[in-house]
Amino acid sequence: MTTTLLDGIGLLYTGDPEREEIEDAALVVEDGRVAWVGHSRGAPGADERVDAGGRAVIPGFVDSHAHLVFAGDRTAEFQSRMSGRPYTGGGIRTTVAATRRAGDAELATRAAALVREMLRQGTTTVEIKSGYGLTVEDERRSLEIATGLTDETTFLGAHVVPEGVAADDYVRLVTGEMLQACAPYARWVDVFCERGAFDGDQSREILTAGIRAGLLPRIHANQLGEGPGVRIACELGAASADHCTHLTSADVDALASSGTVATLLPGAEFSTRSPYPDARRLLDAGVTVALATDCNPGSSFTSSMPFCVALAVREMRMTPLEAVRAATYGGARALRRTDVGWLRPGSRADLVVLDAPSYVHLAYRPGVPLVHQVFHSGLLLEEDVQNPSAVGAF
Amino acid sequence: MTTTLLDGIGLLYTGDPEREEIEDAALVVEDGRVAWVGHSRGAPGADERVDAGGRAVIPGFVDSHAHLVFAGDRTAEFQSRMSGRPYTGGGIRTTVAATRRAGDAELATRAAALVREMLRQGTTTVEIKSGYGLTVEDERRSLEIATGLTDETTFLGAHVVPEGVAADDYVRLVTGEMLQACAPYARWVDVFCERGAFDGDQSREILTAGIRAGLLPRIHANQLGEGPGVRIACELGAASADHCTHLTSADVDALASSGTVATLLPGAEFSTRSPYPDARRLLDAGVTVALATDCNPGSSFTSSMPFCVALAVREMRMTPLEAVRAATYGGARALRRTDVGWLRPGSRADLVVLDAPSYVHLAYRPGVPLVHQVFHSGLLLEEDVQNPSAVGAF
Ligand SMILES: [Zn+2]
Ligand SMILES: [Zn+2]
Repeated sequence: MTTTLLDGIGLLYTGDPEREEIEDAALVVEDGRVAWVGHSRGAPGADERVDAGGRAVIPGFVDSHAHLVFAGDRTAEFQSRMSGRPYTGGGIRTTVAATRRAGDAELATRAAALVREMLRQGTTTVEIKSGYGLTVEDERRSLEIATGLTDETTFLGAHVVPEGVAADDYVRLVTGEMLQACAPYARWVDVFCERGAFDGDQSREILTAGIRAGLLPRIHANQLGEGPGVRIACELGAASADHCTHLTSADVDALASSGTVATLLPGAEFSTRSPYPDARRLLDAGVTVALATDCNPGSSFTSSMPFCVALAVREMRMTPLEAVRAATYGGARALRRTDVGWLRPGSRADLVVLDAPSYVHLAYRPGVPLVHQVFHSGLLLEEDVQNPSAVGAF
Repeated sequence: MTTTLLDGIGLLYTGDPEREEIEDAALVVEDGRVAWVGHSRGAPGADERVDAGGRAVIPGFVDSHAHLVFAGDRTAEFQSRMSGRPYTGGGIRTTVAATRRAGDAELATRAAALVREMLRQGTTTVEIKSGYGLTVEDERRSLEIATGLTDETTFLGAHVVPEGVAADDYVRLVTGEMLQACAPYARWVDVFCERGAFDGDQSREILTAGIRAGLLPRIHANQLGEGPGVRIACELGAASADHCTHLTSADVDALASSGTVATLLPGAEFSTRSPYPDARRLLDAGVTVALATDCNPGSSFTSSMPFCVALAVREMRMTPLEAVRAATYGGARALRRTDVGWLRPGSRADLVVLDAPSYVHLAYRPGVPLVHQVFHSGLLLEEDVQNPSAVGAF
């Protein structure tokens, strides 16, 4: 197998807590994995050499929360909300109706386009949820499509109770027939635990049924108000509690003393003009924080992890280092992955070369496309990035 | 001369107040100018045809406020500010010292790289200020470099009083020898009218001297607190008062009853964690509003007009339409240009094809690079955008 030396890295953020930053760094890739990381002057020989030209390098972003399988359009809804006009459309129901109507090929094409868009912005691992089908077959096919794009698939039949169905009946369906149909295509089970969606008892029931079917739990919790979601996450050993916008001290304590990651989704607060979660409070309490896009057509249609990093620094008082850590290492923890989110011997060679001397520029230069090159499993995707049709699955 | 038909435009935002939006639109380009705009079905024949594939098209962004001629690095200052740590570095003095030390070629190369970066993000007209030289020769060469990149050059010798110089002496220099040396390279004269920089009397004196030397006035006003800047702008008939963050009712009235544009620079508030200007109040009073990046290494190192549009909608309660209008038509008004900022017969064929069905997506999809193609004077810059060395001046 050929070895490649990536040399001339001005500043390497490794994501490895034992040695997070290396100036004047190099990295050796072998067989799609990182074989060596360190200072340029100590680099071993390799068959090929790529010069980063003094640029900064970071691990590929790990976007641990995204809703990419959907059809339909909600531009008018966004426009009305941001213009202060009342909107009489259907909200999520619009997306559910359009998704049910869409053919498999349309759904797959749209999801793949979003995955490519993410890849061009440096995201090399993405989680994809179902949740816009809300019937046994529409949830199943949403997850089947997702498995063509990522290993990190999440069954979110419990996104909302569909129109015309009683809540109890729907919980029975989600924990029964729908779960049986979906489990073969999913790694994770998720529930939207919120007033107006699923309450604490229902959420616990849904996650527990998922766990019995072999899935790992994660949860949408405490987005719109305080509630039991975060404590249920910690109690069930969920990998992550996502949103965490409205937390009590007991919630923060529960997160700090559990292995559950707090995944913050500032794109949602940006796009709904809502107050941001208090990342500082979580970090100061010792909670592991992840950042993700929540990419979805209703409340956060960004696919940009660099944008989330910039928001985290501006709005949530994370330092640039904490934000990039949350977008890489944190995301990997939120997906219980040890092969991505950091660059150290044995990890997958997923990395981003930035058109900047430091990862700080992701916040210092907000909105500017700074991704120079993306390597995925050691392969340079530059050409593919320019030629969307050539980019396949994660 | 060859004519080109750009057809299949899903939604055209023209920037022309008489007909701002056209669905299912087409546009004919001849000799670098727009020859025809309208519905696809009425389009005249042309020698060549380009299909926009249902994408949205907007005029190229007009970024009417940028500081691109500088050297040095202020990453550490940004990092300290955003991490809540005290910073003992020199602020703007750092940039002034590095700019004076830098060779002409270095300054020109860096400025050109930022112009290319802007072009890739859809900016086809940019204003460039001096202001990091603060000596006769360093201001002169900064402007000479700027003239190689844009017609919209601004003499900002009065950016700050340089270290070791008495304020009165410096005003005398700026209005005398420095102005004489710089005027041949500048279209505009600008002053930073703010507590700690130049007061009302000094600002009026500097702008008046510039006007006498044949330059047109514009002004940095009311950024950090209330002050006389906006009223001086209106009194002198300045094209634009820039920042407008802290305004009295009298300021708003003065803007509304003058031809002076209020140019808002939300990138600065984003990057300094400051409160945003109240765009709604200005728009409701009938003031013409422009959006610009204020691209500079200290307080706003973004070069992204799409990012400013998204911020304007989220933070300043502009509608998506108002924000895209301010970033195109508004910027052109702020530079007193009638050939750019809109697409109508006779205007320069500067336009952006978005990877989106509507300009609304600039706010709906924040941070996502949505620029599909950029045409500058009718020339498709796609290849040049991918090959930075091929992109020349505006
Ligand atoms: Zn979500
Ligand atoms: Zn400025």
